[in-house]
Amino acid sequence: MIASSIPNFTRALTALSGILDKGAASAQARKIDPLVLTSARLSPDMFALARQVQISCDVAKNGFSRLAGIDAPKFEDTETTFEELQARIAKTVAFLNAVPADSLKGSEDKVVTFPAGPERTLKMKGDAYLNQWMVPNLYFHIVTAYNILRHNGVDVGKMDYLKGADLLP
Amino acid sequence: MIASSIPNFTRALTALSGILDKGAASAQARKIDPLVLTSARLSPDMFALARQVQISCDVAKNGFSRLAGIDAPKFEDTETTFEELQARIAKTVAFLNAVPADSLKGSEDKVVTFPAGPERTLKMKGDAYLNQWMVPNLYFHIVTAYNILRHNGVDVGKMDYLKGADLLP
Repeated sequence: MIASSIPNFTRALTALSGILDKGAASAQARKIDPLVLTSARLSPDMFALARQVQISCDVAKNGFSRLAGIDAPKFEDTETTFEELQARIAKTVAFLNAVPADSLKGSEDKVVTFPAGPERTLKMKGDAYLNQWMVPNLYFHIVTAYNILRHNGVDVGKMDYLKGADLLP
Repeated sequence: MIASSIPNFTRALTALSGILDKGAASAQARKIDPLVLTSARLSPDMFALARQVQISCDVAKNGFSRLAGIDAPKFEDTETTFEELQARIAKTVAFLNAVPADSLKGSEDKVVTFPAGPERTLKMKGDAYLNQWMVPNLYFHIVTAYNILRHNGVDVGKMDYLKGADLLP
């Protein structure tokens, strides 16, 4: 059951990749240094776009590695360019696609322990961790990345965000 | 299975209610007309805060009414104040809590038809509609509401957004 949620994460991260492509194209078209966009933020005490993308990836990567009880690759958080951010998303999607479904069996009832900020450790049951922590966190950082770009004049729309949804003919 | 996702929606909408409370308190403390905040937006072509809250409610209300095959109350989209927005959230949560679990049985495989914008109708299978449409849309509008307030100097944080998550002791 938890394994069936992985495609929701890869879909959302792939949509984020498309949104970043539009950001990069907009910077080029408007002759703006792309780093102006990747370092933009909505408020002085919020993370910049690059960090929002890094965390979107980590929510998925670290979340499923905890649920599956497997090691996740460690990323160094050094990305600043659109290209580097795209590479991080690609590595994250590849990791998610390689999580063995068997390793997630029974993880609904597993107790997951995870850091929340530098000084605090929290615990949740697996299904609650997925639906009340990982999913809202994933969308928090993806939507904030979207909002940062839109606030900076990039022509992204809701369908870029929902891209990949399984529509019926 | 789909019925078990209702608490995720009520949790998120209740967190949104707490975030709006902080917005109202901040307006009062800073002697700002609260309507300045409820009509704020991140970009001239994005919806203002009040509309983000209205849509957050409708994603949940209309989504579960379609999945359950029951009528949903119709809201008139006239809210402008924090109090009116809070009332809309409360009515939405009450509706969600009253959806009979039986009415959602088998809705994973039901074909759901729904409007996307004024001129388009889309179709999805129930489980995809929930996980690839309703959930990302719900968080899209809640996070954008959060970002609008934070961008306008309201002291909200991630734990306001995740509030209500079932943490273990």
